[in-house]
Amino acid sequence: MYLQLIGQWPSYFSFLVSFTFIGIMWINHHRLFTHIARCDDVLLILNLLLLLGVVVVPFPTAVVATHLGQSDQRTALVLYNATYVFIAIIFNFLWKYASSAKRHLLAKDVDAASVKRISRQYAFGPVLYIVCLALSWVSAEASLALNFALACFFALPPHVAVSKES
Amino acid sequence: MYLQLIGQWPSYFSFLVSFTFIGIMWINHHRLFTHIARCDDVLLILNLLLLLGVVVVPFPTAVVATHLGQSDQRTALVLYNATYVFIAIIFNFLWKYASSAKRHLLAKDVDAASVKRISRQYAFGPVLYIVCLALSWVSAEASLALNFALACFFALPPHVAVSKES
Amino acid sequence: MYLQLIGQWPSYFSFLVSFTFIGIMWINHHRLFTHIARCDDVLLILNLLLLLGVVVVPFPTAVVATHLGQSDQRTALVLYNATYVFIAIIFNFLWKYASSAKRHLLAKDVDAASVKRISRQYAFGPVLYIVCLALSWVSAEASLALNFALACFFALPPHVAVSKES
Amino acid sequence: MYLQLIGQWPSYFSFLVSFTFIGIMWINHHRLFTHIARCDDVLLILNLLLLLGVVVVPFPTAVVATHLGQSDQRTALVLYNATYVFIAIIFNFLWKYASSAKRHLLAKDVDAASVKRISRQYAFGPVLYIVCLALSWVSAEASLALNFALACFFALPPHVAVSKES
Repeated sequence: MYLQLIGQWPSYFSFLVSFTFIGIMWINHHRLFTHIARCDDVLLILNLLLLLGVVVVPFPTAVVATHLGQSDQRTALVLYNATYVFIAIIFNFLWKYASSAKRHLLAKDVDAASVKRISRQYAFGPVLYIVCLALSWVSAEASLALNFALACFFALPPHVAVSKES
Repeated sequence: MYLQLIGQWPSYFSFLVSFTFIGIMWINHHRLFTHIARCDDVLLILNLLLLLGVVVVPFPTAVVATHLGQSDQRTALVLYNATYVFIAIIFNFLWKYASSAKRHLLAKDVDAASVKRISRQYAFGPVLYIVCLALSWVSAEASLALNFALACFFALPPHVAVSKES
Repeated sequence: MYLQLIGQWPSYFSFLVSFTFIGIMWINHHRLFTHIARCDDVLLILNLLLLLGVVVVPFPTAVVATHLGQSDQRTALVLYNATYVFIAIIFNFLWKYASSAKRHLLAKDVDAASVKRISRQYAFGPVLYIVCLALSWVSAEASLALNFALACFFALPPHVAVSKES
Repeated sequence: MYLQLIGQWPSYFSFLVSFTFIGIMWINHHRLFTHIARCDDVLLILNLLLLLGVVVVPFPTAVVATHLGQSDQRTALVLYNATYVFIAIIFNFLWKYASSAKRHLLAKDVDAASVKRISRQYAFGPVLYIVCLALSWVSAEASLALNFALACFFALPPHVAVSKES
């Protein structure tokens, strides 16, 4: 049985990676919505698009886990990284929309520097995930390494992730 | 693997359509319950019937996705559109019940014009989804096109969807 | 495909019955917890036992749906009704515990007559579900008919279900 | 059918044990978070690690249930008990972090004796679950018996589980 349990490692790997990355997105979502006090229809839709990204994550992660090291791993990595490009873009849209001064969706006592730091941290997302995607053609290891490094970067609180002087 | 992933398109299609349409129902539900401040037993039951419609949606959607373009697609479309006829009727019943002046279920500061606009937007639902259902016998494309157009119509906020003069 | 869809009726039947009966339990739970204002460890455990009953329901319901009209339907009905005997007992324990005057778990402004009516309605549960269970040996139809009648009885608000004079 | 139902006992056993043990963890989580009033990023992450433990539980439990009494039951028990060692460690970290005076995460009116009692009860967890794990090599029955006894111990409220004098 020991070997049977070990033989299922792609399932464990994709479960743990999906759990961790969705957890990091949840923490980020929590960070944004401690600042957001009101919502409107567009914010609801952007939030649903974020949820779409989150619920999709386990599928490309499982595809990567089962095809890693095989001849067709590139397709898996493209699908996987494309999902994160999508999520990073939606996070930026949602935050840009919510934090826009003219819409008054943020809490009144919100700290302007804190809002700016989140915007600056998130701006790295789409660009760097596209680099991840491009790296799929160069090296699977490099692509995954950058993808995992980005997850760590977005797990960091904004005041640690981006330099304090703004 | 690329072809394997592409070959699963009916799953993706039905997942995305179900997600989108349930999302639109969630936004509508959210709109109604920002006006509703109290509940009673009948409202709980109508709300459960709405939930029944929502949890059922992925099944007929998957049936349509797997049978589209085949000889028996009409049965699939009838099942699919019948689900939306049911949901549209329940939405109307729930809103009519909740917004009835004598039951005092709405918030005290509710805007009468806003209540009226929702009633007018929802009144289109049952009739037009029955047209969708009837179109299944004429043309599958027309039936789906009207169904998707209706989803967009119900995604619109009431003050955009129905003319402002009331 | 029409015949294939029809051929799955036991799935639809058990889904609809489970959904309806869990819905009725949800409404009852909602009724109890509009009166309950505080909780303690025993109430948490009784609430978990109720949740256990609720999550189990779809299994015996599916067993009944797939074995109805077959020679071994009695075993299915015994399992099914035993689940409801368990749920009815837990509902009674939970309410007796929560409504006990010395524990001060109810809201302060709770209506004594309303508490009494719930106690009287729930007292019918365990006895009548045991009758349902016993009827499994006499007639499957009678057993299911009484079970469904009881679901309707518990869907009724207490002031309708039990006579108003107390 | 009676024999078929009985033949699925490992499924029922692992379902019931998972449900019960997750229920006990839920009660403990509830106990902690009635004292915790504020949260920060580290607490969010520790809470996610706890959630990871909770969602994993049904897997090793099912592995134990299907392999009990077979030659390879030790591997199953090691996996099972290792999960609880992990959960016990995370519960301790989370509570130590949250209850640390310098972080001000607890409610202001929190009872110091009550905080101390939880710390003392939880301190038993990691050590005793490691004993459980070690017992897997000696006797499967002893390992499971201690594991179940520990579940009961953690179901007890802290003021009952640890002596009142502190």
